[in-house]
Order: sequence, then structure tokens, then C-alpha cells
Amino acid sequence: MRRRFSDSLRKEVDLLWEKIFTHPFLIELGEGRLPLDVFRFYVKQDYVYLLEFSRCLGIAAAKAEDRETMHTFASLLNASLTVEVEMLERLGQKTGITADELRASKPAPTNVAYTRHILSVAYAGTVGEIMAAMLPCMWSYQEIGEKLNAQSTLTRNTVYSEWCATYQTQEYMELVSRYRRLVDNLASESGSRMKKKMRTHFVLSSRYEYLFWDMAYRKEEWPL
Amino acid sequence: MRRRFSDSLRKEVDLLWEKIFTHPFLIELGEGRLPLDVFRFYVKQDYVYLLEFSRCLGIAAAKAEDRETMHTFASLLNASLTVEVEMLERLGQKTGITADELRASKPAPTNVAYTRHILSVAYAGTVGEIMAAMLPCMWSYQEIGEKLNAQSTLTRNTVYSEWCATYQTQEYMELVSRYRRLVDNLASESGSRMKKKMRTHFVLSSRYEYLFWDMAYRKEEWPL
Amino acid sequence: MRRRFSDSLRKEVDLLWEKIFTHPFLIELGEGRLPLDVFRFYVKQDYVYLLEFSRCLGIAAAKAEDRETMHTFASLLNASLTVEVEMLERLGQKTGITADELRASKPAPTNVAYTRHILSVAYAGTVGEIMAAMLPCMWSYQEIGEKLNAQSTLTRNTVYSEWCATYQTQEYMELVSRYRRLVDNLASESGSRMKKKMRTHFVLSSRYEYLFWDMAYRKEEWPL
Amino acid sequence: MRRRFSDSLRKEVDLLWEKIFTHPFLIELGEGRLPLDVFRFYVKQDYVYLLEFSRCLGIAAAKAEDRETMHTFASLLNASLTVEVEMLERLGQKTGITADELRASKPAPTNVAYTRHILSVAYAGTVGEIMAAMLPCMWSYQEIGEKLNAQSTLTRNTVYSEWCATYQTQEYMELVSRYRRLVDNLASESGSRMKKKMRTHFVLSSRYEYLFWDMAYRKEEWPL
Repeated sequence: MRRRFSDSLRKEVDLLWEKIFTHPFLIELGEGRLPLDVFRFYVKQDYVYLLEFSRCLGIAAAKAEDRETMHTFASLLNASLTVEVEMLERLGQKTGITADELRASKPAPTNVAYTRHILSVAYAGTVGEIMAAMLPCMWSYQEIGEKLNAQSTLTRNTVYSEWCATYQTQEYMELVSRYRRLVDNLASESGSRMKKKMRTHFVLSSRYEYLFWDMAYRKEEWPL
Repeated sequence: MRRRFSDSLRKEVDLLWEKIFTHPFLIELGEGRLPLDVFRFYVKQDYVYLLEFSRCLGIAAAKAEDRETMHTFASLLNASLTVEVEMLERLGQKTGITADELRASKPAPTNVAYTRHILSVAYAGTVGEIMAAMLPCMWSYQEIGEKLNAQSTLTRNTVYSEWCATYQTQEYMELVSRYRRLVDNLASESGSRMKKKMRTHFVLSSRYEYLFWDMAYRKEEWPL
Repeated sequence: MRRRFSDSLRKEVDLLWEKIFTHPFLIELGEGRLPLDVFRFYVKQDYVYLLEFSRCLGIAAAKAEDRETMHTFASLLNASLTVEVEMLERLGQKTGITADELRASKPAPTNVAYTRHILSVAYAGTVGEIMAAMLPCMWSYQEIGEKLNAQSTLTRNTVYSEWCATYQTQEYMELVSRYRRLVDNLASESGSRMKKKMRTHFVLSSRYEYLFWDMAYRKEEWPL
Repeated sequence: MRRRFSDSLRKEVDLLWEKIFTHPFLIELGEGRLPLDVFRFYVKQDYVYLLEFSRCLGIAAAKAEDRETMHTFASLLNASLTVEVEMLERLGQKTGITADELRASKPAPTNVAYTRHILSVAYAGTVGEIMAAMLPCMWSYQEIGEKLNAQSTLTRNTVYSEWCATYQTQEYMELVSRYRRLVDNLASESGSRMKKKMRTHFVLSSRYEYLFWDMAYRKEEWPL
């Protein structure tokens, strides 16, 4: 049986993702002892990220070839701007961030870099490239959810366990699964140069995923 | 009271839209005597158009500044790819077009020209420009619906009256209304040069609206 | 030896291009008896076309992968905005079009359709797609120049023979040759789906090339 | 007399640019004692930057309204890909970087962030926005050149003084001057919202200019 393209992507970032899973932010969150102000910082940054991620979904919908794929992106876009935004607003409320504060969030340097990366891929690239650049976010959150939910220590903190549960719903897992299949299909129709580009975007986004957690943990600020 | 920008746009195309309202396609449709094969041609072309229109909505969502506007476009995009596509599929079934046939529709020259116009505005322009280019389609259909529904003759043909009713629902009228307000707001924040561009796109799309009806009526084909 | 992709493109449009070569515009031009007002109409439209073609070259430069290809597009872009524009201005002077008149030219419907096609491919597509959409213009002009220059009748009209000579210079032929090789290279690295898209763009642009000559011959106007 | 928009931009980043002028990289370069390996790192990064900067110029050319502005960008694009690249290649030779090494340069994190910023502005924004995002690079180099050339200590190092002289030629200063006027003109035709966007891009690019020098000084590497 032929190996899936997404499996080869996953393998390539194995060490990198391992560093994500073992980053203090996620370790401490899993043990229910992540300082709340660090989590709040993360929620605000994720709120900004979500809007930029949504922009990329809009462009992906525009560039998709058939109605089914367009609809997949349109649904994701809609969900991002409703369900996911509301989830962050709810988390915000529970941790003491007002809706106004959430909306006024300013992106930290790493957040700007990450979202400009996916945005420029979205505008300049093909649907395959866009999906490859967006996949690490969606997919790594599923694996993070899986690992954290397996830990008994998480339940100590209801906010963190609630956050975690989002990425372990049947619906979310099917979404990632569908998205991966789309990436596989697009790769199978692509030449080697295009596949190489997809790989490059996937790796860079994976790096940024790590850096995003690190940014939150350090409550990164602009040096000037 | 200050005049709305969209009112000034509407005034500028008054004669042009009048030619739309009195085009044989719509006159005959309103009297229930439009040949069914002409209507079928229209439905197939509109199906293709809808997908390209949806692409523009995706880009508009990507370029919108705030979450509310993004969400407006995302909802429209979702509706285009579900409710509106299904409406055309239903009309297709009733008039003898299979779903496969509908999907296999190839755009006639005027359809290509119109959709390339809005697509290139979408990629190259601002949200204000995109909305100005897309507004004539949405708005003129509402006025067409209004005029046709006022005619007693329409009811002779249930397919045509059903098609017409779509653009006279409370929901559709609110949509157009909301969209117009967005255009007004964007224009009010724009300089004169941007407003001129918006006006130019609006007029060209209005021309294309006329030409689209004419294309359908003539069952336009590529000359080679 | 493997067949070049551009050869397969050329074969696909053989009948279509034959219709270009035998269009009354080019027949009459070749016999030096094309009415001057028709040629003037063409020059004005070509002036508008050239600016939009240049925009596509700018985007192609932005999307090219390596510096060499970027530079190829940048040179073409510069040449379009200088040498080629000046050539049209010179032709304009000789045939009684002032520089102001040339700049004030408004695109006829077919011109809008053609340029929106290449522009939307430029923004939404890959470099390979952009080049495939732009190739018919460059390449067919070379073949037109070849055929017309072989005719003894052309020399009767110095303006027409001067215009023709532009597309038969060593420099122009090398340009087309280099451009074709780039298309071949990009195709060889692409999957079948991308190649199919390139083919589709190439055929549509070839259709528009025919329609452009026809537009000029008919001195096409907007129907409303 | 009305104040120029570019003057107001310049004022807004006064403190920020002051930090650029007094960054150890430029202080040590001006005193001829910047370690050569640091300068080499900078040259390699600038080579990568230049290609991405050129892409933005291509898109700016595509989005410019009139032929003159298109030509301004096309000339800049051509110069970037020839004169400026060759200048870096020459500096590379003199400091021991082979042409192959230069071409194989991989962008450091700050370089990726900066170029993705200007690229995403280029694709998503207007010409005014693009120019505002690109201006800090061009303009600050002119001021850096001015300050460094005034220092007698620079002449100790011929490579550094040669690099510096590039940004003090009559030609370069006229270029910046022309570019500033374009920004002023575009701003004067824009609404307040657009001007605010231009300001935001200008400030962010100024920040990245500082961070770029800092990146070079630290010979920044990817943390993973």
C-alpha cells in the first residue's frame, strides 16, 4: 500500500512536534499548574491568530477547484468565526478576559510572523500549499488534545480540561481526518516541485507552532 | 440628511437597469411564456456563475477588516454554496436538468467575462471595491423579484414564480439591505479615488448583468 | 525524444490559430488594404491591452521561484512599458492618434474580457498557469509576423510593414523561444492536473486572440 | 503649507529609527570595526531579502493605476534584480562569499517575518499600503548612508565604505525622493482609514528594520 503524503509530512516533523508536546506550557497545562496569566496571554493571542487563520480559509475557498472543497473551506471558515471564536470568548470569561479586551488583543511578534507566513502562502500559493501551511495547527492540536486528555492530572483544572476537550470531540477529529485526506489527494495530483513546496510550508508552520507556545509561555513582547 | 453612496450608485445605473427589467428574458418570464430551454440555459449558467461569485466572497472574507464583516461574507459564502446551489439544483430537477448536467455546465463567453471581472477586482482590489463589483447582482435580483412578483401573470408558471420568490423573501431583502449599508460605510471612509473605482466596478457589473440576461436569451455560444 | 509541452499546446490550437491567420483583419493588413481607421482602433485597444498584460508580468515576477525567472519577467515588464508602448505611440503618430488620445483609450468588451482572464489567472494561479495564459499572445504574433513578412504585398503600406517587422526581429524571436522553454520546464515539473489547467488557459487565450482581431475589425462597441 | 504625509510618518518613527542608527551593528560598521563574519551574515540575509522585496515590487507594478507609476516600480524591480544583486555579489566576493553560497542563503527568522509582512501587504493591500510597507527600507538606508559617510572613521574599511556609498549616490537619493512623493500623493487621495493602515505598515516595517540589524549582529539562528 502506498504511503500517505501526510504520513510522510508527519514523520518529517516528528522531533519538532515532540518538542511541542514537551514544552513547559503544555506540560504545566497538563498538570493543571500553568499560571493563569500565561493561559490568558495565550487565549488573547489565539483570538488574533484565529482571525488571520480564517482569512487564509477564505482564500483557500476562493482557490479550491470544485464545489465540495470550496464548501469544506467555507464550513471551516464559518466555524472559525463562530464556534471557535465563541469558545475563546467563553474561556476568556472564565479566566477574566472581557470580550472587549479579547477584541483589542495585539499580536505578539511570533504571532505576526506565523500569520504572515500562512497569509502569504495563501495569496501566492495553490490550494495544496495553503492546506499544507495550515495543517500543522489543526493536526497538532488534535495530538495535543489526545495526549493531555490521557493525563489524569488535567482534571484538576476545569478550564484547561475544557479547552482540551475541544480538540478531542468526534467532530474535530473527523475534521482533521477530512483535511488530511484533502492534502493527500492534492499531493497525489501534484508534481515533485509542488510537493516539495507543500513540505516546506508544513515544516515552517510546525516550527511556528512550537514558537507560538513558547511565545505564550514567555508572554513575548515587542523588543521595541 | 446626507445621501447614501449606494443611492448615488443606483441612480447612475438607472437607465441601464431599466433595460434589464424590460429585457425580453424577464418580460417573457414574467408573463410565464419564456421558453423552458432558455430558462434551462440560464439555470446552468447561473450555477457556474454562483461558484465564481462564491470565490469572490471568500476573498472578500479574507480582506475584511473586522470579524463582523468577515462573518457577513462567510455566511454569504456558505449560503451560496448550500441554499443557493440547492435552489438551482431543485429548479434543475423541475425543468429536466440532472445534477450531473448542472455540474458539467460550461460558461458561455459573457459568463466568463463577467466572472473574470469580479474575480480580478476581488484579487486586486479592496473590500469596498469587491462589494461594489458584487452589489449589482444581489441588488438587481431583488428589484427584479419585486417587479415580477407584482405581476399577476407570473403565477401561470410555477417554476418561474418559485424562482422569483427566492429574491423576495424577508431574509433576502435584509441581506441586500445589510450589504448596501456595508458599501455605504466603506465608501464613507474612502477617498474620492477609491469611490470612483467602486463606481466604475458597479457600473461594469451592471452592464454585465444586462449582458448575462441577454446571453441566456440568445443561448450564447463561443463563436469558435 | 520527448515531445515538448508547448508543441502539444500549439497542436491543440492549430485550427483556432489558422482562423486567426485568415481573419480579414490580417488578410487585409497583409495586402496593405486594411482601412486605417480599423488599424487605429486596433492600436488604441492594444495600448490598453499592453498595460494589463504588464500587470500580469508583474505578478509573474512576484511568483517566480528563482532570480533568473524573476528577471526574465522583470525585463519583459520593463520592455512592455517602454519599447512596446513607444512602438504603439510611434504607430499612433504615423496614423494620426495623439499621445493623449492613446492614453484615453477605453477597452472594448472583448479587450476587457481577455485582460480580466489573464489577470485573474495571474492572481489566482501559479507561474506555469500565468505563462500558459500569456503565451498565445506572444507566440501567435511571431507566427503572424512570419506569415505577413513572407508576403510581397505588405510593403505597399509602410506603417503596416513596420508594425509587422517588430515581431520578426531576432530579439523578439529569442524572447518567444525563451518563454516557450520556460513553459516547457514548468510543465515538466507539474502534475497532470496543473498541466490540464495550463492547457485550458492557453486555449482560452487563443480564443481571445482570435476575438481580439475580430473586435478590432468590427470596431466593437459596448451594446449599452 | 500642508505637511507631507511622509513627514508625519518619519516623525512617528523618530525614536525607533534613532535606535537603528545607534545599533552596535551600524556603530561598529561606521567605525570600521564590525567583525567581517557579522557583515557576511548580513550580506547573505540581504540577498534573500532583496528577492522578496522584488516580489513586492512586481505586485506593486501590477496594482499601480497609471503607466508612469507602473514604470517606476518596474524600473525599481529591474534594478533590484540586477544592480543591487550585483552589488551584493561584489561585496560577497570581496568578503569571501562565493556566488553559490550567496544563492544558497537561508533566511533567518527575522528575515522570514519581515518579508512575509511586506509580501502579505503586497498581496492583500493597495499600492499605497505596499509603498508604505516598503518605504522604511529604502528611506532608512539613505539616512544611514548619510550618517555613516559623515564619519571619518568609515574609510578605514574599504568594503564598508563602498557598501555605504551605494546609498549616497545622487541616483539613490532621487529614487527615495520620488518614492516619497508617490507615497504623499497616494495618501492625499486616501481616506483616513487607508492612511491609518499605511501608517501601521510603515511602523511595523520600521520595527523590522531595527530587528533586521539586530538579527545580523546576533547572527540569528532558528531555535529549532
